[in-house]
Amino acid sequence: MQMPDPNQAIIARKAHLVARLKQVLPDGAVIHSDNEVRAYECDALTAYKCPPMAAVLPATTAQVAAVLRICHEEAVPVVPRGSGTSLAGGALPTADAVILGVARLTEVIETDYDNRFIRVQTGRTNLSVTGAVEQDGFFYAPDPSSQLACAIAGNIAMNSGGAHCLKYGVTTNNLLGVTMVTMEGEIVEIGGAHMDSGGYDLLGLICGSEGQLGVVTEATLRIIAKAEGARPILLAFDANEVAGACVSDIIRAGLLPVAIEFMDRPCIAACERFAKAGYPDCEALLIVEVEGSDAEIDDQLAKIKAIAATHDPVEMRESKSEAESAAIWAGRKAAFGAMGQINDYMCLDGTIPVSELPFVLRRIRELSAEFGLDVANVFHAGDGNMHPLILFDANKPGDLNTCEALGAEILKLCVEVGGCLTGEHGVGIEKRDLMHVQFDAADLEMQVRVKDVFDPGWLLNPAKVFPLDVTEARRAARDVPQRQTQDAAIA
Amino acid sequence: MQMPDPNQAIIARKAHLVARLKQVLPDGAVIHSDNEVRAYECDALTAYKCPPMAAVLPATTAQVAAVLRICHEEAVPVVPRGSGTSLAGGALPTADAVILGVARLTEVIETDYDNRFIRVQTGRTNLSVTGAVEQDGFFYAPDPSSQLACAIAGNIAMNSGGAHCLKYGVTTNNLLGVTMVTMEGEIVEIGGAHMDSGGYDLLGLICGSEGQLGVVTEATLRIIAKAEGARPILLAFDANEVAGACVSDIIRAGLLPVAIEFMDRPCIAACERFAKAGYPDCEALLIVEVEGSDAEIDDQLAKIKAIAATHDPVEMRESKSEAESAAIWAGRKAAFGAMGQINDYMCLDGTIPVSELPFVLRRIRELSAEFGLDVANVFHAGDGNMHPLILFDANKPGDLNTCEALGAEILKLCVEVGGCLTGEHGVGIEKRDLMHVQFDAADLEMQVRVKDVFDPGWLLNPAKVFPLDVTEARRAARDVPQRQTQDAAIA
Repeated sequence: MQMPDPNQAIIARKAHLVARLKQVLPDGAVIHSDNEVRAYECDALTAYKCPPMAAVLPATTAQVAAVLRICHEEAVPVVPRGSGTSLAGGALPTADAVILGVARLTEVIETDYDNRFIRVQTGRTNLSVTGAVEQDGFFYAPDPSSQLACAIAGNIAMNSGGAHCLKYGVTTNNLLGVTMVTMEGEIVEIGGAHMDSGGYDLLGLICGSEGQLGVVTEATLRIIAKAEGARPILLAFDANEVAGACVSDIIRAGLLPVAIEFMDRPCIAACERFAKAGYPDCEALLIVEVEGSDAEIDDQLAKIKAIAATHDPVEMRESKSEAESAAIWAGRKAAFGAMGQINDYMCLDGTIPVSELPFVLRRIRELSAEFGLDVANVFHAGDGNMHPLILFDANKPGDLNTCEALGAEILKLCVEVGGCLTGEHGVGIEKRDLMHVQFDAADLEMQVRVKDVFDPGWLLNPAKVFPLDVTEARRAARDVPQRQTQDAAIA
Repeated sequence: MQMPDPNQAIIARKAHLVARLKQVLPDGAVIHSDNEVRAYECDALTAYKCPPMAAVLPATTAQVAAVLRICHEEAVPVVPRGSGTSLAGGALPTADAVILGVARLTEVIETDYDNRFIRVQTGRTNLSVTGAVEQDGFFYAPDPSSQLACAIAGNIAMNSGGAHCLKYGVTTNNLLGVTMVTMEGEIVEIGGAHMDSGGYDLLGLICGSEGQLGVVTEATLRIIAKAEGARPILLAFDANEVAGACVSDIIRAGLLPVAIEFMDRPCIAACERFAKAGYPDCEALLIVEVEGSDAEIDDQLAKIKAIAATHDPVEMRESKSEAESAAIWAGRKAAFGAMGQINDYMCLDGTIPVSELPFVLRRIRELSAEFGLDVANVFHAGDGNMHPLILFDANKPGDLNTCEALGAEILKLCVEVGGCLTGEHGVGIEKRDLMHVQFDAADLEMQVRVKDVFDPGWLLNPAKVFPLDVTEARRAARDVPQRQTQDAAIA
């Protein structure tokens, strides 16, 4: 008698699933050849890779619902994917999962200037939302660095922020309503175009839930009238701690610039080489941008300069023209590309109380020396959202491990000073095992129970957000068909 | 053989519970005599009354946890109560419930200007939060009309707003973290003092959950630096619809005043009699307030006047002094008191897209004629949060019923135009049976499941938010000991 061949079982399972998916989707919307699924094997956290079983590209909410119904019936995990720009592995497949990509959901459904909202399908990119309304003087505020590529679906999943969120808030502050499909394939409407909701605020819960509670296919987004003008000032200091203290004083004074961006020497140097922005020779730079009428801008910048002056700046360079404004921003906007040109790096995303900036920057320098890896800092300082870049050499054995260990220490530091593991990138797989640092068992249990409600089988975006032992225990407890979590991250 | 006396059983049950509660609370913190519990028989929705079995006044989070553990073990419903100012019956007891009042939880725990937050116990009143920081130039933004009396706990439960929320947002936009006690008596920390949270955003879910998911005992609140100055302008129009159109144009232009308040003729007349604010003779008034430096104020008011001028205003009266500003606000702030002096009234709380204001105001007038009850309108127009006051005579048989029927029609109208049943008062018992209008079965089921997660026995703030049939069905399904819901509202 022959033993059953496990590979044959997997192949048969896949063939059965693909056949069912093809019945509900148009030609070309089901991707299943080994070669083609490789396009979905990772997101922007490229250190981790795992080709999915298949990928689907539905073009309507009804198609999304049909896919989810099938996967639910077949107990197949589903990994929702926006544009795959997650820096936290939020869209990393497991080998037994179907990738559900929203790239074909790109329509603008309604634009309403009277009530200041736009309704879009969520595969639309962040920047093209603004693109749809800018000719009428409006914009969509959250502006992640990846805004040219990233999808609104991913922005909602991760509650994305950006440089200009200090004034306008992050995604959750600009999201009015969604159409969401549950894992069971049920289509639900949450929120609307109004300021509040009856009953519980499920919208707040969905935003930032990393695609684990449902697949959001349409979103109503707040749009904002563009300010008359905006002007940055560049402030240079001879120590990180001094720049940090200046940020703290600006916030304490109750000023609300649109952005306060911070760069330290390693980052300034890399940006100068790459973008030749003409930044001064200094230890730390702030770019502070204010907006409004000319009178308002003058007024706010005068106050900011007065505060900065008390911190002995090396230079204060106020933009006098569009060209000068562009030059001030050029280096900052090139930061990630510039760093990538000279090094492999891991970009962290801890958030801290603004007043802790000087202390945390000093501790990061100490940890950097201890672990023997350089750390460059470039981040949204106004809301305490740090982005330390740990530089390493991917070809050097052990360097990635050291980098991850240092990253974990820095994120623990953020939590210790009263901050949080993540500001805008999400937990994904990157920070899931650090959730125990942020939350005690009771706090985490509340989140587990919420996951249970929306996705009792724990099929949606598996192996993310929760420490892997929690996910495994929960799956076991729920009597879900026992499958080994085929997770590249722990392979 | 004697039949058991059901009254004896209730009395014994109460005596047992009171004895247990006294073991964990200080002297005087357990209120149980028939006379004394009457103080808790209703909130500001005074048409409904029901004395609770007992009331407790814990002074620490640990005491709250002890009370909830006992009530959980004894399967006794718990009605959390802030200051009892709910206009929606959000703190209405049931006869078998214990009122858990937070009135003794009034401490300021921490004030941190560098990071712009204050941490308080939630029994503290809204205005006294600002009181704790105003000497240093800060304030807490949400400002419900009841701010002198209402507790932060109730603000969080109802996601309260206020006149100045157009610019600064409602409670959920100003809440950073909470300590919450679950029905099982577990103490959990949610959020923090930072901008985002790892994992799911439970804080957004808790805010506005009407005390049904847990009892919030401490809260970290965003505080904001006071603007340099503020100045209102009074705009008078000869028709409601014209005033509504003017609001719509101000919002469309992307201006963001701190407040846009609307009053119609019946309301203006009542306020004039009461407060003698010197309002012009007109059909509709707007009070628009802007803030900032003098230059910013001048700039914004010039733009607002230019927009208003296109709507043929009867009068535009810009404040020239502190005294004139106070006079402009005097009438508006007296509105509810003034209306109460001449009539019984029911205050609704529907929210609509701002562009629908002219249509909705016209339909309300038609409905008012149809039902034969006057409706006065005074509300936060900038964010579409309407407060129609239906005037009736509580001593006239049938008038309250007619008033409720008209109220239901107006709220349905709000939902029909794309709005919502409630802006800031919450659903409570007042609007629970209208939830079917706002949500279909699938949408409502998601909320039911969330309630299941946090309070499987449906013991916390019973008979609110959900239609009563949903609550009853859920209790039955969950195998909770069958108790008749002793609900004054349906008695």
